Amino acid sequence: MAGVKERKIGIIMNGVTGRMGTNQHLMRSIVAIIQQGGVKISETETIMPDPVLVGRNEVKLKKLSEMSGVKKISTDLDAVLKDKGYEIYFDAQSTDRRAKDVKKAIAAGKHVYCEKPVALSSAEAMELQALADKAGLKSGVVQDKLWLPGFLKLKMLIDNGFFGKIHSVKGDFGYWVFEGDIAPCQRPSWNYRKEDGGGMILDMFPHWRYVLDNLFGEVKSVSCIGATHIPERKDENGKKYKCTADDAAYAIFELEGGVIAQFFSSWCTRVRRDDLLTIQVDGRDGSAMVGLRNCLVQPKFSTPKPVWNPEEEQKIDFFGGWQEVPDNVAYDNAFKIQWELFLRHVVLNEPFRWTLREGAKGIQLAEVACQSWKERRLIEIPEI
Amino acid sequence: MAGVKERKIGIIMNGVTGRMGTNQHLMRSIVAIIQQGGVKISETETIMPDPVLVGRNEVKLKKLSEMSGVKKISTDLDAVLKDKGYEIYFDAQSTDRRAKDVKKAIAAGKHVYCEKPVALSSAEAMELQALADKAGLKSGVVQDKLWLPGFLKLKMLIDNGFFGKIHSVKGDFGYWVFEGDIAPCQRPSWNYRKEDGGGMILDMFPHWRYVLDNLFGEVKSVSCIGATHIPERKDENGKKYKCTADDAAYAIFELEGGVIAQFFSSWCTRVRRDDLLTIQVDGRDGSAMVGLRNCLVQPKFSTPKPVWNPEEEQKIDFFGGWQEVPDNVAYDNAFKIQWELFLRHVVLNEPFRWTLREGAKGIQLAEVACQSWKERRLIEIPEI
Amino acid sequence: MAGVKERKIGIIMNGVTGRMGTNQHLMRSIVAIIQQGGVKISETETIMPDPVLVGRNEVKLKKLSEMSGVKKISTDLDAVLKDKGYEIYFDAQSTDRRAKDVKKAIAAGKHVYCEKPVALSSAEAMELQALADKAGLKSGVVQDKLWLPGFLKLKMLIDNGFFGKIHSVKGDFGYWVFEGDIAPCQRPSWNYRKEDGGGMILDMFPHWRYVLDNLFGEVKSVSCIGATHIPERKDENGKKYKCTADDAAYAIFELEGGVIAQFFSSWCTRVRRDDLLTIQVDGRDGSAMVGLRNCLVQPKFSTPKPVWNPEEEQKIDFFGGWQEVPDNVAYDNAFKIQWELFLRHVVLNEPFRWTLREGAKGIQLAEVACQSWKERRLIEIPEI
Amino acid sequence: MAGVKERKIGIIMNGVTGRMGTNQHLMRSIVAIIQQGGVKISETETIMPDPVLVGRNEVKLKKLSEMSGVKKISTDLDAVLKDKGYEIYFDAQSTDRRAKDVKKAIAAGKHVYCEKPVALSSAEAMELQALADKAGLKSGVVQDKLWLPGFLKLKMLIDNGFFGKIHSVKGDFGYWVFEGDIAPCQRPSWNYRKEDGGGMILDMFPHWRYVLDNLFGEVKSVSCIGATHIPERKDENGKKYKCTADDAAYAIFELEGGVIAQFFSSWCTRVRRDDLLTIQVDGRDGSAMVGLRNCLVQPKFSTPKPVWNPEEEQKIDFFGGWQEVPDNVAYDNAFKIQWELFLRHVVLNEPFRWTLREGAKGIQLAEVACQSWKERRLIEIPEI
Repeated sequence: MAGVKERKIGIIMNGVTGRMGTNQHLMRSIVAIIQQGGVKISETETIMPDPVLVGRNEVKLKKLSEMSGVKKISTDLDAVLKDKGYEIYFDAQSTDRRAKDVKKAIAAGKHVYCEKPVALSSAEAMELQALADKAGLKSGVVQDKLWLPGFLKLKMLIDNGFFGKIHSVKGDFGYWVFEGDIAPCQRPSWNYRKEDGGGMILDMFPHWRYVLDNLFGEVKSVSCIGATHIPERKDENGKKYKCTADDAAYAIFELEGGVIAQFFSSWCTRVRRDDLLTIQVDGRDGSAMVGLRNCLVQPKFSTPKPVWNPEEEQKIDFFGGWQEVPDNVAYDNAFKIQWELFLRHVVLNEPFRWTLREGAKGIQLAEVACQSWKERRLIEIPEI
Repeated sequence: MAGVKERKIGIIMNGVTGRMGTNQHLMRSIVAIIQQGGVKISETETIMPDPVLVGRNEVKLKKLSEMSGVKKISTDLDAVLKDKGYEIYFDAQSTDRRAKDVKKAIAAGKHVYCEKPVALSSAEAMELQALADKAGLKSGVVQDKLWLPGFLKLKMLIDNGFFGKIHSVKGDFGYWVFEGDIAPCQRPSWNYRKEDGGGMILDMFPHWRYVLDNLFGEVKSVSCIGATHIPERKDENGKKYKCTADDAAYAIFELEGGVIAQFFSSWCTRVRRDDLLTIQVDGRDGSAMVGLRNCLVQPKFSTPKPVWNPEEEQKIDFFGGWQEVPDNVAYDNAFKIQWELFLRHVVLNEPFRWTLREGAKGIQLAEVACQSWKERRLIEIPEI
Repeated sequence: MAGVKERKIGIIMNGVTGRMGTNQHLMRSIVAIIQQGGVKISETETIMPDPVLVGRNEVKLKKLSEMSGVKKISTDLDAVLKDKGYEIYFDAQSTDRRAKDVKKAIAAGKHVYCEKPVALSSAEAMELQALADKAGLKSGVVQDKLWLPGFLKLKMLIDNGFFGKIHSVKGDFGYWVFEGDIAPCQRPSWNYRKEDGGGMILDMFPHWRYVLDNLFGEVKSVSCIGATHIPERKDENGKKYKCTADDAAYAIFELEGGVIAQFFSSWCTRVRRDDLLTIQVDGRDGSAMVGLRNCLVQPKFSTPKPVWNPEEEQKIDFFGGWQEVPDNVAYDNAFKIQWELFLRHVVLNEPFRWTLREGAKGIQLAEVACQSWKERRLIEIPEI
Repeated sequence: MAGVKERKIGIIMNGVTGRMGTNQHLMRSIVAIIQQGGVKISETETIMPDPVLVGRNEVKLKKLSEMSGVKKISTDLDAVLKDKGYEIYFDAQSTDRRAKDVKKAIAAGKHVYCEKPVALSSAEAMELQALADKAGLKSGVVQDKLWLPGFLKLKMLIDNGFFGKIHSVKGDFGYWVFEGDIAPCQRPSWNYRKEDGGGMILDMFPHWRYVLDNLFGEVKSVSCIGATHIPERKDENGKKYKCTADDAAYAIFELEGGVIAQFFSSWCTRVRRDDLLTIQVDGRDGSAMVGLRNCLVQPKFSTPKPVWNPEEEQKIDFFGGWQEVPDNVAYDNAFKIQWELFLRHVVLNEPFRWTLREGAKGIQLAEVACQSWKERRLIEIPEI
């Protein structure tokens, strides 16, 4: 558009040749932002990403460049980090590589934005935060679920007082992951091997942390029992292997402000609920059943009054008395929304709470939940 | 019928002027058994109950006698206990009176059958068991949920191997109990006062104990957090009062054999599920969603394979893939079924596992759950 | 892919200019295998087909070559058979030409793979098997229905014990083939002329043989009545002709292990069932209704209990109590699956049960069924 | 009504204290006819039944008399048979008693009407017919299915030329009779013991005979295989017993006029069809799917033209293209209709084809089917 000033911002995108990196971060976020003409920040200004794709396999990078239209590629991260034209370093490599390269980026004076988990431990993640703080750099960690339509609707309900005082949150996550007998397993086999970093608690509790922290109040304590219910599965080549990681976790969280959250997380449950992840929120003035994309509500005024009488057929249709929150708002891709917020944070200094510290908190919850399981007690979560 | 021999058995029914006692124990159990011609025990013999109604209010007793057709009434328990014509003492008085009169009945050589809770503490309940054992008398405690159609269907599924190995049980109990503002409270106010014996844990955990013990395996340990989410309610007279008892409880149980059970129990939740109490059971070969009267199943062969992709609308209808277990069997009143089993136990010496000890175990679970809440740890349940 | 070794295997494809040969064997099987990079047999090896198209009409062959991308064509079968570069001879010619050319191929030392029927009689088919055996060559016959999604789901159910003991199989095949009056006939007219090799028994019983043999147990005996219900039809040119072949067949089969199978096969029936071919399988623990692509199940636990009372409206919805076996597995083209299995059989010596002998058995069942019809008795099927 | 002349007709009802006799013959037929004012045979005349209830248990007879309003009862059959006031003898006793008392009735000059089976063998039944013929007496046998709404609709379709030439009939009968494990058996245990007269062929083939004979053409030959699929069941007292009778039968019938009928009859099948008994009739001009009370049709003009292409999803909804024959006629009780026809036959000499001979034919079909099973051949049914 005529008269619109573009503020170009260089972004080093490291490790976006993987499925998640390519689809969500490159194509649906950065390329989509470029195609829409940048992030509009005023009537006359936009932020325009200027990415370079960095990786170890040149063939893949060239293919990705062709597909995405992003011209600049490089296999030499160190060289690119020296380039003052890039202000942001983004990392979507596998977890074990992340911390080392983020440190380099901070040393090179780049703001950092990372996929989660940020590091292999919360301590290491906090070390990164400390380094960034010392260097006066900004940071961000992907916490995409927060911008899924279901959670945006929930946030809207909370912010507008729908629930009155919330007292209880019930999370149900999971589905049947096939063992490989009557159907091939729909998840990679490493997920079920502890020695390869698998397990329900490590995989999902970081999500529960930011969802709870952001929507209901800081998680204060956790009581958790994990289990390996399916002892043996078949891997990608149809070969049996022993499952060593937890495939289900049963947890109760105490949140700031007295809310209690109970989460059932299982890869060996069959689904009779509204979605693969549902969160029921109960408040004095109303309740909601939140899925990934939909959200149903029952306000106090349309709450039925059941009477407990097991001798008779129940006359109330408990599924009928809920109403859909309509799609009155256009919901953008969750990853792209967070990217836009991070770019504004870097360029305009707008607040952005999803820093490396928040990433560290997610890892911490998984760590403390495992400790609770082992020590068989409710554990207070230390301040980080 | 000509040629059928009736074995008359005298039953002292104490405290059946209350709603539960009148409806379930007198009318739908004992009177119904009399009207059907007794409990048939062979082609030529039946057990025929011969009840006497005992209480403190003669006017109420007379009314009850008229309604039920039971001729014999008395306000003098001690006198009736001396009568050798009565073999069974049944107690449906309020809990605080029960232990004292059960002791008297045991001293008088009667077999005892009681409403639950048997006593105010598990220790007191076990004392009663010890007395009965010493006197060589039989005992029973009402555990009616076990004979509701939903639980009978579940038992049938378990006994016939539907689930394969069961690994997980998820209980969801509760509904919205009105605070007395937009609608009067549908439960008595004492339920929400600790000092009057109220509270979710005391009320419902004894039920969870016998359901879990009988269907899935002995409860081995419990981790529980209770809460008083609604701080103030209006009582029967519309007067505000402070709620001192827990109105919700979040608990995880470890069962014998490695099954984990997670229970959500709340009087301040809005219901989006199949019934006021639902229990989802997950096993290797199938899952069931059990309500009070209905039971839905999803066998492994019709289990869908969802893929986690929050960016797209879910295509699977998760409510569609379940099938009702049909009402192929005629289900009698749950209280009456247990009464018939107890009468056969007394007369024929048939096995009957729901003794005073089982009643004590129920109270014990509530006690240990409260301790877990207070001490903030998972507690092993001692052998009783 | 770099580092992957291709094991090239030459295939003479004779008679693939017909509809079936072109679509199923050339395009959707061999060309599709080439396009997917061959049949992967290990992390580092694939089998890569190297076909030559053989036929009598050069114009058609050239067109086919262009369409398929297969470069090599020839009208001289004898010359091609001499080429040691080809290990496999595939025959999709019309049945009367097949045996002669298969014999030539065996003489030339080729493994053979054929469309069905293999020959005009089971004796001739067995002669081919004997020749192949003597020459130490491998053979295969197309039995494509086995790899249709419906039958793969059925096989999965059988292999995983869904049915318990199977006792009964009911097949319903057919639909209305128009006589040519109100709508043109949707099948070639020779199908209804015995003198041209037409008839339901010859056409479909070879299929019933391999379906029954492979899934439920060897067919031991057959009782069959055929019929020509529609005496006259109009041919491709709208000209009336006399129908001399059977257009319906009613048959009962006894299978190894005591299973009884009843098949209704008709080109003059109107369809009120789930598919053009349905097979109901009844077992102690469950039943299935199998179609070509879908499969519905009713386990014992959700089986309703009807009572026979014709004076009252039936209250049970007999279509409602069945559940779809979900498409949890990706189903490839049935012809291609069998091709891949045959290529692995030739190259890796993996087991492959669908040999010329199995093709002979299919023809044999049609022969014995015709004999049963003529001799009006149940006939034991001789070992072949 | 004034001016209406009642022709009273005395009926000896022997053995109507059983469930079928009481409900169908006494209450819903004879008592219903009396209550409607008799069978109207012209504007001025009716036939009015004048029954006497005969049996061996006086207590039961008195109770029945009270319930039905039929005043006359007797335990002395011989005395009643001497009474010239009774023209008709009806027999609903158990089968083993029937022939003897029917003979007595014929000797006493009564017309006879019987429940089926008329006798224990077709020979004995034909002996009764011969005796009646010799004595110049009329006879009838209950063949109630013919007057069920579904079959009346079918008859209407046949008589009005809906089908054009019928060529094929496919019967599907049966449902799952529980073994007594997960649900009690819904049929008496003697049905599954050969030594007590049980078995599918004996029970149902007499019905198939009159349905086929009356609607489609005389049964000319039968090929049948029976089976005992469930080897063990639990009886009325929960005790296991060995099943010795056939619980399924697979049969093909040739009918007069070239129609072929195939019947699947099973007590161990799960139902996925329109009713417990369905009969599909295929004719040149249309087809029907007949249930006990409903009847669906697909005329030639709305027959879809499917193409066999298993590689693609079927696009035709094969259940959609059928239309219900509406209840344009009020359907009376099937037993009562036949009673009225028999009374008209006796009084007005109107034709009545359902004589003792027809009853004999039903038994004969069962006998010949058993012979076919044993001799493993298609057997012509001898003229009776």
